[in-house]
Amino acid sequence: MDVDAPPDEQPGANPFNRWHPDIESVVTVEPGETIRLECLDWTGGQIQDNDNANEVRDVDLNQVHYLSGPVEVSGAESGDLLKTTLLDIGPLNERSEFGFTGIFSQQNGGGFLTDHFPDAAKAIWDLDGTYVSSRHIQDIYYEGMIHPGLIGTAPSQELLEEWNEREQELIEKHEEDPESIQNHPTGESEPPVASPPTTDGALPGEATGDAADRIAEEGARTVPPREHGGNCDIKDLSLGSTIYFPVFVDGAKFGIGDIHASQGDGEITFCGAIEMAGYVDLKFELVKDGMNKYGIDHPIFEPGHRGPNFSDYVVFEGYSVTEEGEQRYMDAHVAYRRAALEAIEYLTKFGYTREQAYMILGTVPIEGRQSGIVDIPNACSTIAVPKGVFEFNISPDALDEHESHGQIPITDDPLG
Amino acid sequence: MDVDAPPDEQPGANPFNRWHPDIESVVTVEPGETIRLECLDWTGGQIQDNDNANEVRDVDLNQVHYLSGPVEVSGAESGDLLKTTLLDIGPLNERSEFGFTGIFSQQNGGGFLTDHFPDAAKAIWDLDGTYVSSRHIQDIYYEGMIHPGLIGTAPSQELLEEWNEREQELIEKHEEDPESIQNHPTGESEPPVASPPTTDGALPGEATGDAADRIAEEGARTVPPREHGGNCDIKDLSLGSTIYFPVFVDGAKFGIGDIHASQGDGEITFCGAIEMAGYVDLKFELVKDGMNKYGIDHPIFEPGHRGPNFSDYVVFEGYSVTEEGEQRYMDAHVAYRRAALEAIEYLTKFGYTREQAYMILGTVPIEGRQSGIVDIPNACSTIAVPKGVFEFNISPDALDEHESHGQIPITDDPLG
Amino acid sequence: MDVDAPPDEQPGANPFNRWHPDIESVVTVEPGETIRLECLDWTGGQIQDNDNANEVRDVDLNQVHYLSGPVEVSGAESGDLLKTTLLDIGPLNERSEFGFTGIFSQQNGGGFLTDHFPDAAKAIWDLDGTYVSSRHIQDIYYEGMIHPGLIGTAPSQELLEEWNEREQELIEKHEEDPESIQNHPTGESEPPVASPPTTDGALPGEATGDAADRIAEEGARTVPPREHGGNCDIKDLSLGSTIYFPVFVDGAKFGIGDIHASQGDGEITFCGAIEMAGYVDLKFELVKDGMNKYGIDHPIFEPGHRGPNFSDYVVFEGYSVTEEGEQRYMDAHVAYRRAALEAIEYLTKFGYTREQAYMILGTVPIEGRQSGIVDIPNACSTIAVPKGVFEFNISPDALDEHESHGQIPITDDPLG
Amino acid sequence: MDVDAPPDEQPGANPFNRWHPDIESVVTVEPGETIRLECLDWTGGQIQDNDNANEVRDVDLNQVHYLSGPVEVSGAESGDLLKTTLLDIGPLNERSEFGFTGIFSQQNGGGFLTDHFPDAAKAIWDLDGTYVSSRHIQDIYYEGMIHPGLIGTAPSQELLEEWNEREQELIEKHEEDPESIQNHPTGESEPPVASPPTTDGALPGEATGDAADRIAEEGARTVPPREHGGNCDIKDLSLGSTIYFPVFVDGAKFGIGDIHASQGDGEITFCGAIEMAGYVDLKFELVKDGMNKYGIDHPIFEPGHRGPNFSDYVVFEGYSVTEEGEQRYMDAHVAYRRAALEAIEYLTKFGYTREQAYMILGTVPIEGRQSGIVDIPNACSTIAVPKGVFEFNISPDALDEHESHGQIPITDDPLG
Repeated sequence: MDVDAPPDEQPGANPFNRWHPDIESVVTVEPGETIRLECLDWTGGQIQDNDNANEVRDVDLNQVHYLSGPVEVSGAESGDLLKTTLLDIGPLNERSEFGFTGIFSQQNGGGFLTDHFPDAAKAIWDLDGTYVSSRHIQDIYYEGMIHPGLIGTAPSQELLEEWNEREQELIEKHEEDPESIQNHPTGESEPPVASPPTTDGALPGEATGDAADRIAEEGARTVPPREHGGNCDIKDLSLGSTIYFPVFVDGAKFGIGDIHASQGDGEITFCGAIEMAGYVDLKFELVKDGMNKYGIDHPIFEPGHRGPNFSDYVVFEGYSVTEEGEQRYMDAHVAYRRAALEAIEYLTKFGYTREQAYMILGTVPIEGRQSGIVDIPNACSTIAVPKGVFEFNISPDALDEHESHGQIPITDDPLG
Repeated sequence: MDVDAPPDEQPGANPFNRWHPDIESVVTVEPGETIRLECLDWTGGQIQDNDNANEVRDVDLNQVHYLSGPVEVSGAESGDLLKTTLLDIGPLNERSEFGFTGIFSQQNGGGFLTDHFPDAAKAIWDLDGTYVSSRHIQDIYYEGMIHPGLIGTAPSQELLEEWNEREQELIEKHEEDPESIQNHPTGESEPPVASPPTTDGALPGEATGDAADRIAEEGARTVPPREHGGNCDIKDLSLGSTIYFPVFVDGAKFGIGDIHASQGDGEITFCGAIEMAGYVDLKFELVKDGMNKYGIDHPIFEPGHRGPNFSDYVVFEGYSVTEEGEQRYMDAHVAYRRAALEAIEYLTKFGYTREQAYMILGTVPIEGRQSGIVDIPNACSTIAVPKGVFEFNISPDALDEHESHGQIPITDDPLG
Repeated sequence: MDVDAPPDEQPGANPFNRWHPDIESVVTVEPGETIRLECLDWTGGQIQDNDNANEVRDVDLNQVHYLSGPVEVSGAESGDLLKTTLLDIGPLNERSEFGFTGIFSQQNGGGFLTDHFPDAAKAIWDLDGTYVSSRHIQDIYYEGMIHPGLIGTAPSQELLEEWNEREQELIEKHEEDPESIQNHPTGESEPPVASPPTTDGALPGEATGDAADRIAEEGARTVPPREHGGNCDIKDLSLGSTIYFPVFVDGAKFGIGDIHASQGDGEITFCGAIEMAGYVDLKFELVKDGMNKYGIDHPIFEPGHRGPNFSDYVVFEGYSVTEEGEQRYMDAHVAYRRAALEAIEYLTKFGYTREQAYMILGTVPIEGRQSGIVDIPNACSTIAVPKGVFEFNISPDALDEHESHGQIPITDDPLG
Repeated sequence: MDVDAPPDEQPGANPFNRWHPDIESVVTVEPGETIRLECLDWTGGQIQDNDNANEVRDVDLNQVHYLSGPVEVSGAESGDLLKTTLLDIGPLNERSEFGFTGIFSQQNGGGFLTDHFPDAAKAIWDLDGTYVSSRHIQDIYYEGMIHPGLIGTAPSQELLEEWNEREQELIEKHEEDPESIQNHPTGESEPPVASPPTTDGALPGEATGDAADRIAEEGARTVPPREHGGNCDIKDLSLGSTIYFPVFVDGAKFGIGDIHASQGDGEITFCGAIEMAGYVDLKFELVKDGMNKYGIDHPIFEPGHRGPNFSDYVVFEGYSVTEEGEQRYMDAHVAYRRAALEAIEYLTKFGYTREQAYMILGTVPIEGRQSGIVDIPNACSTIAVPKGVFEFNISPDALDEHESHGQIPITDDPLG
């Protein structure tokens, strides 16, 4: 991949941005073999290393994500598990030793707290080997939790149809009665609740002609994670992890992209990780008939042992009562919101702006836990913020005086 | 406390089981002082060390939880933070060196997966110092994550009224339209969505006369966690942790109970932890005006450093599509359900019964994470099961043949 | 055990302080059974909770250590392994919730750096559950690494004789040519290099008459660790650990004592741990013929998972060049000395006295490593000091100004 | 650097293999800047990826180590600390994605247990990103602890002379009385106890003419670690670590080499790490007058947080009694030997050959501790072997039957 060339003029194989069983594999590997895949950042270079947030405001979300592959694994059959080891992950080259985090506009992408943060903003990160830092969010310097945000196998035609069908039903339910969608950020018809197939911006990889057209028309969008993996955005899928993916089509047709230099649980700003272009070294093996043998129809994984290790945390609690005081029933989404809002408020007391605090939670390896899920009516979620990422003490008895930690670019001309 | 005496005939101070500002403190401590509090198990001895699950089926939930205190902390004023260190936790005495886990009947208590596990069952655990094991769930032996399930300060009258009001609104919404309650296990009028105040079974501590009556009538039930802490059931509040509670009334009026020898994130079987009677050694300090200074109106905490440390996990993923295939919008509750169901199915392949597997997830220190919460429409939750608690290898390439691991008592005469 | 009664007037079984196969077992346990043993502190109460260091100066070292047991394990035979799990460890009772650390006089006990610290000093510690702190060494507060300093099985008569013989040879070599003993602190005839059997102060447990006399005459002193375990002073034998001891006599005859609330690797001040009276809960199992099967003739162990976990350290390096500049050949003892002296000097820059710094290294769970042992002529040892035990930042770019951290009692009338 | 070219025909700057203040810097960096240095393996390519151990037998030790630099840091003055962060470490290129471990011949290099393993042997490792494995030592597969074995600043002329002088005294002492050298492997005149300066094989970097000659004549050999760092072989100097080196000459003149893919504490086979050619990304900062301010005249460091994390170990104990039964006085070198020999014997019971077991201890991240150093006459050292590096269970109650794990090349024609 070449980060200086447009996504559709790459020197290697064409990236793809839809899930479909008919996207042609670009390479075949034997079980046990290792392979390096190179990945563009998830926006294909739409966001650059500068101090202007308007790129985030204007990002074209139909184009994303730019995925590499598919890889065909010899001998893989439907029903197997594809054991995939993440041997190494790093920046694509010196030109890509930066990362970005965006708060998306409520009118274009949104995010977990989009009603609290409606306007586009962005932060640029320096990637120095294992460490990350940002001129826009100062006084944090830490070893990030690098991982692919998006990784998975191809769906079967049958599974693809199931996805499209069930998501369409949700879209229709939303159209009919926007208020029926719990936790929708506005309760109105915008923003959408799911992304249906669209030919607009579709990249079918190496496919051409009729096949390309069908992929564009039917192919599942890459935003959500699904039974094959996909955009699961799990920070713990980091260096050294081994993932067992269900195989739904012969050859498995593995794809990957959306590399993150670090991320907190939830990826709460949506473009909440430190987004980067990178490479991944992979090893593939097969567990024959593994789906049935282990009763698995979702990916499972064994995390690596590379940390980063933190042993000191400040932990915030949230319960399922909305910011407006409405009592929800066991709503873990709301509980997590409340924990995040508590943490943001807390960090502002130490001198960060609210936008900086939001981005900190999106990028540092916070542990976001489903701590309690049975004590009616309150689900309890917690967010554990590692103290070691800050260059000063954030303990709740350590506050002296407010300090400034720089500032992040926020769009000067918001949408909407 | 005396585990052989009924809860209402305890030799020391009377336990209490409602949250109310007027419950009298039973002891006053100075900041910096340490104190030992003794706690009955949360059911006050209703469940004993035997092989009969009917005790779980028939448990009286109006009586619970049996709390110790309140403790008055000298100098604590509304707006302070009560810094509380968990110095030590252990079984009350040799008679209480056992614990229990229950799957509650769907007609009496229920649980996270009550539609999948409608009938009462129970497991008894041996508590051997730092280790736990069970004759009912064999071949696991591990160092548990001991903690109080329930810990907090007293609400102000104002806050108490806010709680009762918002929970009542939910109850009314449910009565009016049971199907409007997302994630309700039946979608019908039973089970309830919250527990309103009731004089039935109310224990007002040392209060008597009118005060006792008012406490029974108004006092908030102890089931959910709220802004003061309460029944948060956070496994990470373990040995050595320091918690900062908001203070809402002068003296703070700290209460504690519901000791767990171990628990997984979510406490998914409801009585999902290993429940025990125990003592807690505590130290209290004050951060004056801390709520305002740190922007805190929920508890926050710094976990201790006592582990137990596990470095190897098998992790299960779940997304917000229901078991029936309905696509939900960013529903972290459903995502966690799916991850739990995946893990249960997996463990049955290694020879555990479904009930055993459910209880394993409720009791071993699983990490339950809000891994992704922005990729519409699918929230992604993960459950990381520590491999070290099993006496055999549960890796997804290690399965040889099914083994039996004993059996747990399930009620022979279910309700409903 | 009763900490208020003299060691020889204990209400339970008599303690013993020599290793000998003929000391009678005081209790018999079945494999799989658990048992609680109570232990006096290693000096049998010679050092009390006060501010006077003369007790340390004058301690009678012939009396130590006061051990509990022996325990007979049914079915244990010579050649087996005695699998021993440390289920729980804690203070004996409220009266024993303090600990002490001593710098011994060079004329009475000495220590690793006795030539640098010739005079007696002591520090008293408060034991608050999992935490320790000291009025004599302020601004540290941490979760200690509790463990028995002394734990082991009885030697066979043959092994006992081998011990006495080889140690006697060293004593004679020292007598003949004091300078031939590398790393002897003075190079003179005092202090001794080993402690031969002596009837002076010998406690033969329950033995009486001729047996008692023989035990006193032949019994191995308890200072060093040997093939059976003994006074190994390994901090990692903490909560939850499982140790496999060689069995040399039928019944194994297990003994234990010298409880430490915490210790750093090396226990460098000799009485370097936080010494306490305590209980230990134990479980015994047998691995039949294990010595031969596993090729083991020393104890091996699997550490527990209770931490305490630290992830941030300042690490000091030492090489095998003496303080006087003499180049030694691969001398790991000297390398460790140099690392310790570097660390002490460093801590004084943060305001601790040299004696305080020495005691910090003896008591906090430092990791003392044999980092390099092949690069002639310099062995390299490192000492990793956990930053989390300090209540301020000890990083090498964090020093602001010297602070005082209190003071420790040093004898006002040294020996010698 | 070019691994296919001889060390003295490198396309970039010439490597150097002596420590001397007059070796010219090859590059100047500003504080805060990052830089990548490329390093040959320590033998400069003498050992290749094949199955022949004779390369190890015949290695020319006068040529080693091939170091990169020196780097001049602007503004560094004698007395400062050079704060050096290890941002990233990896293999030089695809051609260097292998590593080697050697047991050196007793007649050429030796090692910690050279009297037990007199003949040359070697193992080749595959480096797959974060993982290592070997066709010669099967059934282990683990995430290695990558680090530079050799890293340091240049000595002043005065310090250099001190080094040469003190090491020469040891050499003379050895010549006069070989038996006076404790822990010498033979007690005879061979092997040497230290390596004096020699012009034979000397590489003076970019220096030429008289300067080159003086460097060759006076320059300290690179085998031992010393006050400037050097060949400290500390496994914990891994990814993300920050080291504070004393600065002895203006500009600091930093050098680095001898990359290890992994190593255990002690690097006991001498060429005991997994040796590789690699790159290191570094950041330099200055702590002005830091040596005096912090009382430091040796390097200190703060380890990174990259693990690999292991939580399960089998630990072996050794005391200071030689294999022949001789009692030594507090000899930590002997204690570590005994622990290593115990571990080797143990691993052979699980099917490894003794040479394989020796190499396992040299390469996996064992924790080698100075556990007890005061209990006369026995020092106690421990070796903690992480269970997670093995693909089967090495617990002391898990042994079923002997298995073969392949074999390593041993020289067919030993020296001597």
